[in-house]
Amino acid sequence: MHLSELRFDPFKKIWVIISVDRSTRPSHFSSDVDGIPGEVSCPFCSGNEHMTPPESFAIRESGSAPDSPGWSIRVVPNKFPAISNDVKHVPLVEEPFSSVPAFGVHEVVIETTDHQLQMTEYSSEKTAEVLQVYRQRIRDHFSDRRFRSVFVFKNHRKESGASLYHAHTQITALPFVPETLKTEVAAFSDCLEKTGKCLMCATIGREIEDAKRVVIEDEKFLVFAPFASAFPYEIMIAPREHEHDFSRISDDDSRQLASCLISVLGRLKASLGDPPFNMILHTAPAGEDGFHWHIEIIPRVTKMGGFEWGSGVMINTVSPEEAALQLRAAAP
Amino acid sequence: MHLSELRFDPFKKIWVIISVDRSTRPSHFSSDVDGIPGEVSCPFCSGNEHMTPPESFAIRESGSAPDSPGWSIRVVPNKFPAISNDVKHVPLVEEPFSSVPAFGVHEVVIETTDHQLQMTEYSSEKTAEVLQVYRQRIRDHFSDRRFRSVFVFKNHRKESGASLYHAHTQITALPFVPETLKTEVAAFSDCLEKTGKCLMCATIGREIEDAKRVVIEDEKFLVFAPFASAFPYEIMIAPREHEHDFSRISDDDSRQLASCLISVLGRLKASLGDPPFNMILHTAPAGEDGFHWHIEIIPRVTKMGGFEWGSGVMINTVSPEEAALQLRAAAP
Repeated sequence: MHLSELRFDPFKKIWVIISVDRSTRPSHFSSDVDGIPGEVSCPFCSGNEHMTPPESFAIRESGSAPDSPGWSIRVVPNKFPAISNDVKHVPLVEEPFSSVPAFGVHEVVIETTDHQLQMTEYSSEKTAEVLQVYRQRIRDHFSDRRFRSVFVFKNHRKESGASLYHAHTQITALPFVPETLKTEVAAFSDCLEKTGKCLMCATIGREIEDAKRVVIEDEKFLVFAPFASAFPYEIMIAPREHEHDFSRISDDDSRQLASCLISVLGRLKASLGDPPFNMILHTAPAGEDGFHWHIEIIPRVTKMGGFEWGSGVMINTVSPEEAALQLRAAAP
Repeated sequence: MHLSELRFDPFKKIWVIISVDRSTRPSHFSSDVDGIPGEVSCPFCSGNEHMTPPESFAIRESGSAPDSPGWSIRVVPNKFPAISNDVKHVPLVEEPFSSVPAFGVHEVVIETTDHQLQMTEYSSEKTAEVLQVYRQRIRDHFSDRRFRSVFVFKNHRKESGASLYHAHTQITALPFVPETLKTEVAAFSDCLEKTGKCLMCATIGREIEDAKRVVIEDEKFLVFAPFASAFPYEIMIAPREHEHDFSRISDDDSRQLASCLISVLGRLKASLGDPPFNMILHTAPAGEDGFHWHIEIIPRVTKMGGFEWGSGVMINTVSPEEAALQLRAAAP
């Protein structure tokens, strides 16, 4: 049982998950060094399946039993979830304060049995397999009608918010559409109303025309440094053909996407020296087709300061034109 | 001449300052260590006044010349401004992209001549003097009718976004009201309309009644851990008497505020071991009196991950009730 609650900040109008259990989670990073652990045994390694909650999905050798070795990718509930299906918090409304149970799914995709391997070193085939697991879990979560949004996100290295070294991705399914995604949905619908075009299709068209911010012009996907990048070397990947729902991607396209992803991660690594990064998949909320899915990659090379948090205005010290130039030239 | 531009992100509907010059600014922090510099000479030390642009304001010994020693607090334009009065960027609108010059003031308050001294170690008198300089600069900027908002913010230590060690605060004056402040102003006006009360006055009343999140219950100010704290040990300081504009604070009240500020910074230091923090003063935009000024302090003890940026939902692993309990017990 978890005591997570979702509190509403009446000043900034944002939701905050107060998730006290999470602060007790083990960290494989010592306070200053982002490296490979020695002493703590890893719950994500093969042979340590008993250290995680029972798996909800796995790609495994036929005949191998759940929660035993024999898997290549394994999905398990987060042992220290920020949100949970098993929440006993009682809703509270005492103006100006309000709080509801933080209900939802929070799970972990353990991408590989290899403790050392990071996504930046995966083969294209391995990456495609991981993307296909994302696809499967999004389908699974949306088949539960209570969930309105699914986020797939990866925190690579400690500086990006990761607490375990072993390569993994996190997935959340929420019974509501959070503010940032709501804003995006509204942006798509505004653009459609004003111009008759999808905002992402228009952006892709413009980026190809301008050419200055494109990193990889693939036949199926465009990889670019967005015009209003909030962070240095921010990357957007989107399918060139309009599609709102990532979980409808074909096997072929997932392989093509994998090769684009691996190429741009390799370029970031070659150019910036294995930076910490966040990767976030933005796919349409349930029942919303006025959207165009995309993947955002944010290398964490600078620190956000007080101005950004206080004003909501971001400061980026590397223009996306310069970032794209550098990443095009980098040999992965 | 600076080439800063303000670009609009059509997806997230946020503004981004692309400020390429800033990436060339010197850093007194080596890549990993947040410490006291040895080799680089400090532009904020007394005797090095020639290393900064000419001062715009100073508290100095009578008879001492501007831009020479003899000051105790000195305000200078930021040498590497994110925004500037001298911008040559031409506005661009090419749907879906738009960009305008990043016009405004970006200045630095050098709080002390002592290279080693940090705000957490100031006397109450010194702190009051610094607060009175904030007050003066807010008045000065709002006397220029082009400016609609002023932010005063301090990034303490490298992890909070600071690039120089010597104690300083930054101030920006902008010709527009950024999104986060706009949301706050709307929150105050919604609350007033619905309940007839100021949102902060209602919050203060509730916090005193609940008592669980109060850190310091001063006669004039309330220091508390907000109900929906987005970060562990987040602190809010607000005057108990309704006042929208920080720059109208009396000398007496600034001394009282200084003693509250010094006490809570001391408690954070005693409890968390000199954590990096951001301190942000939220004061009313020009001509807006439906507001109640407040100071936000955010210790940077956890990393924001991909979920927070992607969804806009924050995860906080320390409840404000627990944070307040700890800070009340800490001896500064």
